[in-house]
Amino acid sequence: MKNSFGCAVTLTIFGESHGPAVGAVLDGLAPGLLVDEGYIAAQMDKRRARGDGLSTGRTEPDAVRFLSGVLRAPGQPLRTTGSPLALVIENANTRPADYDKLKNIPRPGHADYAAGAKYLGFQDARGGGHFSGRVTAALVAAGALCQNVLARKGVRIGTHLARCAGIPDAPFAEEQAALAAQLDALNNEQRFAVLDAEAGEAMQAAVRAAAAEGDSVGGVLETAVLGLPAGVGEPFFDSVESVLAHLLFGIPAVKGVEFGAGFGMAELQGSAANDPFHLEGGQVCTLTNHNGGINGGVSNGMPLILRSAVKPTPSIYKPQQTVDLAAGEDTELRLTGRHDPCILHRARVVQDSAVAFGLLDLLTQRFGTLWQREGENP
Amino acid sequence: MKNSFGCAVTLTIFGESHGPAVGAVLDGLAPGLLVDEGYIAAQMDKRRARGDGLSTGRTEPDAVRFLSGVLRAPGQPLRTTGSPLALVIENANTRPADYDKLKNIPRPGHADYAAGAKYLGFQDARGGGHFSGRVTAALVAAGALCQNVLARKGVRIGTHLARCAGIPDAPFAEEQAALAAQLDALNNEQRFAVLDAEAGEAMQAAVRAAAAEGDSVGGVLETAVLGLPAGVGEPFFDSVESVLAHLLFGIPAVKGVEFGAGFGMAELQGSAANDPFHLEGGQVCTLTNHNGGINGGVSNGMPLILRSAVKPTPSIYKPQQTVDLAAGEDTELRLTGRHDPCILHRARVVQDSAVAFGLLDLLTQRFGTLWQREGENP
Amino acid sequence: MKNSFGCAVTLTIFGESHGPAVGAVLDGLAPGLLVDEGYIAAQMDKRRARGDGLSTGRTEPDAVRFLSGVLRAPGQPLRTTGSPLALVIENANTRPADYDKLKNIPRPGHADYAAGAKYLGFQDARGGGHFSGRVTAALVAAGALCQNVLARKGVRIGTHLARCAGIPDAPFAEEQAALAAQLDALNNEQRFAVLDAEAGEAMQAAVRAAAAEGDSVGGVLETAVLGLPAGVGEPFFDSVESVLAHLLFGIPAVKGVEFGAGFGMAELQGSAANDPFHLEGGQVCTLTNHNGGINGGVSNGMPLILRSAVKPTPSIYKPQQTVDLAAGEDTELRLTGRHDPCILHRARVVQDSAVAFGLLDLLTQRFGTLWQREGENP
Amino acid sequence: MKNSFGCAVTLTIFGESHGPAVGAVLDGLAPGLLVDEGYIAAQMDKRRARGDGLSTGRTEPDAVRFLSGVLRAPGQPLRTTGSPLALVIENANTRPADYDKLKNIPRPGHADYAAGAKYLGFQDARGGGHFSGRVTAALVAAGALCQNVLARKGVRIGTHLARCAGIPDAPFAEEQAALAAQLDALNNEQRFAVLDAEAGEAMQAAVRAAAAEGDSVGGVLETAVLGLPAGVGEPFFDSVESVLAHLLFGIPAVKGVEFGAGFGMAELQGSAANDPFHLEGGQVCTLTNHNGGINGGVSNGMPLILRSAVKPTPSIYKPQQTVDLAAGEDTELRLTGRHDPCILHRARVVQDSAVAFGLLDLLTQRFGTLWQREGENP
Repeated sequence: MKNSFGCAVTLTIFGESHGPAVGAVLDGLAPGLLVDEGYIAAQMDKRRARGDGLSTGRTEPDAVRFLSGVLRAPGQPLRTTGSPLALVIENANTRPADYDKLKNIPRPGHADYAAGAKYLGFQDARGGGHFSGRVTAALVAAGALCQNVLARKGVRIGTHLARCAGIPDAPFAEEQAALAAQLDALNNEQRFAVLDAEAGEAMQAAVRAAAAEGDSVGGVLETAVLGLPAGVGEPFFDSVESVLAHLLFGIPAVKGVEFGAGFGMAELQGSAANDPFHLEGGQVCTLTNHNGGINGGVSNGMPLILRSAVKPTPSIYKPQQTVDLAAGEDTELRLTGRHDPCILHRARVVQDSAVAFGLLDLLTQRFGTLWQREGENP
Repeated sequence: MKNSFGCAVTLTIFGESHGPAVGAVLDGLAPGLLVDEGYIAAQMDKRRARGDGLSTGRTEPDAVRFLSGVLRAPGQPLRTTGSPLALVIENANTRPADYDKLKNIPRPGHADYAAGAKYLGFQDARGGGHFSGRVTAALVAAGALCQNVLARKGVRIGTHLARCAGIPDAPFAEEQAALAAQLDALNNEQRFAVLDAEAGEAMQAAVRAAAAEGDSVGGVLETAVLGLPAGVGEPFFDSVESVLAHLLFGIPAVKGVEFGAGFGMAELQGSAANDPFHLEGGQVCTLTNHNGGINGGVSNGMPLILRSAVKPTPSIYKPQQTVDLAAGEDTELRLTGRHDPCILHRARVVQDSAVAFGLLDLLTQRFGTLWQREGENP
Repeated sequence: MKNSFGCAVTLTIFGESHGPAVGAVLDGLAPGLLVDEGYIAAQMDKRRARGDGLSTGRTEPDAVRFLSGVLRAPGQPLRTTGSPLALVIENANTRPADYDKLKNIPRPGHADYAAGAKYLGFQDARGGGHFSGRVTAALVAAGALCQNVLARKGVRIGTHLARCAGIPDAPFAEEQAALAAQLDALNNEQRFAVLDAEAGEAMQAAVRAAAAEGDSVGGVLETAVLGLPAGVGEPFFDSVESVLAHLLFGIPAVKGVEFGAGFGMAELQGSAANDPFHLEGGQVCTLTNHNGGINGGVSNGMPLILRSAVKPTPSIYKPQQTVDLAAGEDTELRLTGRHDPCILHRARVVQDSAVAFGLLDLLTQRFGTLWQREGENP
Repeated sequence: MKNSFGCAVTLTIFGESHGPAVGAVLDGLAPGLLVDEGYIAAQMDKRRARGDGLSTGRTEPDAVRFLSGVLRAPGQPLRTTGSPLALVIENANTRPADYDKLKNIPRPGHADYAAGAKYLGFQDARGGGHFSGRVTAALVAAGALCQNVLARKGVRIGTHLARCAGIPDAPFAEEQAALAAQLDALNNEQRFAVLDAEAGEAMQAAVRAAAAEGDSVGGVLETAVLGLPAGVGEPFFDSVESVLAHLLFGIPAVKGVEFGAGFGMAELQGSAANDPFHLEGGQVCTLTNHNGGINGGVSNGMPLILRSAVKPTPSIYKPQQTVDLAAGEDTELRLTGRHDPCILHRARVVQDSAVAFGLLDLLTQRFGTLWQREGENP
């Protein structure tokens, strides 16, 4: 399905970095869901670049325009109608001329060369075209809506920069009330989502230092989900891990995804890795959560924990070796234009959105479309 | 789609550990493809348990029976017909009674509790039922067929135990001819697929040591693919990473997937992480391969490199804390029965199979069904 | 997806007429559903040929074997587990030699020539292979299960031979209680499902007369569904009409599908075709049902009415003109072997099954998987 | 997938009659395809209402705006890039106030009541909302593009009003050169696509007569496709008939679909219905074409022939009986506003588009995405 994903709820995305607009079609929403434009705008804002030394100088208003699927009845808030919701975000601040000279000179670490092989040279190569992180603006708008629906059903999602430029943040709390407070704080944070403010300062200093050298940094984004009921997901092809990893690897720059202890699991023995069950107030819980809330691909009621590895932004100002495809010779590339020295703090909103969409789809498969409505059981 | 996956080529799997059979339906194969029953049997054999201290005492003949989609014309080898290929592997060596007492006592690290929540207690809980690694026998049979098709089109796949019980194997060669030789050797290896025989001995000793204590070990499986042309895969939802991770996370026990330098990418700066392009005999190559042969979700012609984190087998003989759901109280569990102290050496064939299926689907999307036939271009 | 269909509930079919078996995988069933083996056997029996002059001499035991997805707990009836349900029906009475001489001589009206073009000559051509009506045995087994689930949720389905060999049956009753009685009678009928016994006698005489001449007859199958709630289906691509027509046109020999007044609608003016609404005991009904219970692709609560046009069986004994592909010349064909002079009375069970599967999928999309369980609301 | 359809090429549609815009996302196009804006505009024009007594007074400029997936390189024509092509058609001439009083009074023959049941009253009910024929404007734009691609590959499509208000048009020519000329003439016809101009005059007079009485008429649209190679389509679920019927029943007002002789097949005996094969210049042809170019769901190289039954427009000015849902009582409805007395002449372009999209998907499944490019073989 290429640019569509999902079964009970589907998301189709489109757009190029320097074309007229990016957008998405979200299908499978129940009718009558509140559309909180303020929350969507807030999420767009968290993703937005600011030209502040931590992100690119290309700032976009990122106003979300709904083309279908929503209706404001007289005296009522905006609600979904139940038909496909199309949204569009116009590209305002484009400078396609920045990319003219790059046409035959693929940027290392970027999709340029692979895209040329795939699209036989016909792709919109300006700013990465459809490969650009710009397309994630549409994903964030759609995901914000999904996140709202989940929040009203008691499912809370938050993401922090677990590592940035080699600097670790504090870990998520193991205790659920403390974790809930952390997730709320992350959602209220506008700019640089960390659990430990000092670590955040050190990360930002490291980003600025890399930027000063014309370089870029990567890191790890960690997401926790609270309130996901046990029994969601499928064994094998629609495991919670499969569905979420599919979406997360769709985000440009993600090169690894792990759940719970992830690659750390590989180093443990079974006696340490297995999460012992016990009863806590009549509720089955696990004493540890190395499996990240998922057993056999299905949620077990514990917090869902996942991490993605985000590579350093490939756009750097240092000279790089590459090839001139027209001349048929090696060459050196010095990028100009506007680029992010780090995308982690912007990408965490994209990760929230991808997780929200994936879980809404799985929950809707299990409980039906109408379950999405507030007050519907189970 | 739950237990089906793929777009141009689709795979549907079914079966339970202690039911009558496991099986698969593979749809979208071109007509006239050779079905190499010897190779399929060899792959089944590599996955098979042997009761040799490294794997469970449950040994199965694992004979693959085709129910449809193949035909042996008079005097001809077995070939696909182009209609859906259904294959079944009967379960011969079942001991469901081993699981009677576990009905209300979920095993830590296993799907039992999550499955109970999902299936409301109606699941076939014997040996994990549909969650069992037993189901991967069907995946291996189908994947062996896909691997054959790819091999005839010049795409070579191999997997080794990159880490086991904390012990590292030698890395894949960077040079492509050397890598090709390694992949061939891995495919010829029947039992314990490593690049460094001494590391393999140490791993096996560690597995036996853990088994002797009633414990189990995990590790990392690393796969390389040679011969994948540039331009395969899609940006966003059908990126090579998304499709392969979806399949790999469907394999029981996989908790992490990474491509190229993976989580290591998060620690690098862009100037180190970007893979510089250069021309080598008129061909565009990269000097390093931190991106694992994929840029922007699309293959770039370099070797595809991926790793999965495989958790230690959750079935251990050491006593474990869990709950008795019927009694509503905490309890201690001591497993009996037949279990693997390590599944890495068996799972590597499953990983080969999952990768082969995923790539065959992506290649077929691009070039059409008939391209699968030997001699068809491009 | 080729040989799979459905979104929330999916059906994958496989098999060839003279191969080892035909079968199906039904995925997306709720756990704990009763599997009524008696009803499944009864449906298989209604579809079975009897060699009685009305159907082919190839009679098959058609025993349905479940490979997965069902479990009989001690002292309990057979129930679904919630994992994919695979079922297999072995082909017992095959005579592939009947087809040897036909390899290069495509039978008029059959798929032989088109199949050769598609499968490049590698198809299993014996008895039509995967194109054979034999494959519908698997559809009937799966559909019987779906029909059971629907019946327990108050949705009743029945099909009659509305026309056969040009002879019309009595029409469905307009009054719902009378229609319900008709549907029950059709479901109890083992052989020749008509509403007017005299019309049935005349039809059977016409079939025998055609058979005596070595010819075959076609007709129209009409299905009614009672108890389908209003609001099921989607506008555009997943309209009730789209989903059911997709399935019905998958049945070999169906060349037309219409809903409500169907092609008759084309001859009416709007003032006659529109179904006026009125209130009946507080319930919104329509005074006529030209739209067959569907407006805008969505059910409106009135009985769903559809018809399919079934062409005469292409296998006839009269000499026919065709080509010898090997010799490259026109030739005359005289079929031998065992063939049905009429398939309507067998195909009506297939139509019931296709409709049941399609509606179960649409209902499950709306209400969720767990809704399938008896007693679950809405 | 609700509002998306297709496998190798997918189409997602969105929009409401009186919302901001309707649109579509077409994914799976090869890169570098010419986008003939003139042809797209011409197709939009054929579908456009003119307020001329034959169609509604709501005339729309129907300008197609591409948001993504196309690029005009310097000095080059507009071409596809290979990434998802999103297009939007703004709604300019909306009069939502026309529908205020209808909120609780479902119009007979329309989706209003079913939509209310489905969307719980939250749907955009103005002008039928997402159920409106207005949404087909997006389908026509996307389909025009598909039709262009097919035409360059030698596949020619055309549709005429085979019946309108009970008046028959001349039939398609059986001889292929004559049929080709008919298809070209239909494609050049701007307004009322018939093969017999006199029949067309009579039809138009009948439409005007019905309109004068405040009534509406229906009819039958017949499509022929020339140049479709043998071997396209799948047995069972992706038969050519299944895929095209799925799409055609998605068009509002279609209540029946048939292929070849269709329902007429039901009245024939096998000896008359089977299409005898013969060789014509070395090419296998059939002497008759009762099967409409499809055997066993797969194209056989003969012209593909299909017909849809289009019901009379439900919007009529005559008084109609219906219910007032708010008052809970029967009532009489007298529609005002702007409505089509006949939609056949507009809908024929929609039918062309649906058929073009469906066939492009099936051909791409078989031959791959790159086959779509002119000059690519086979």
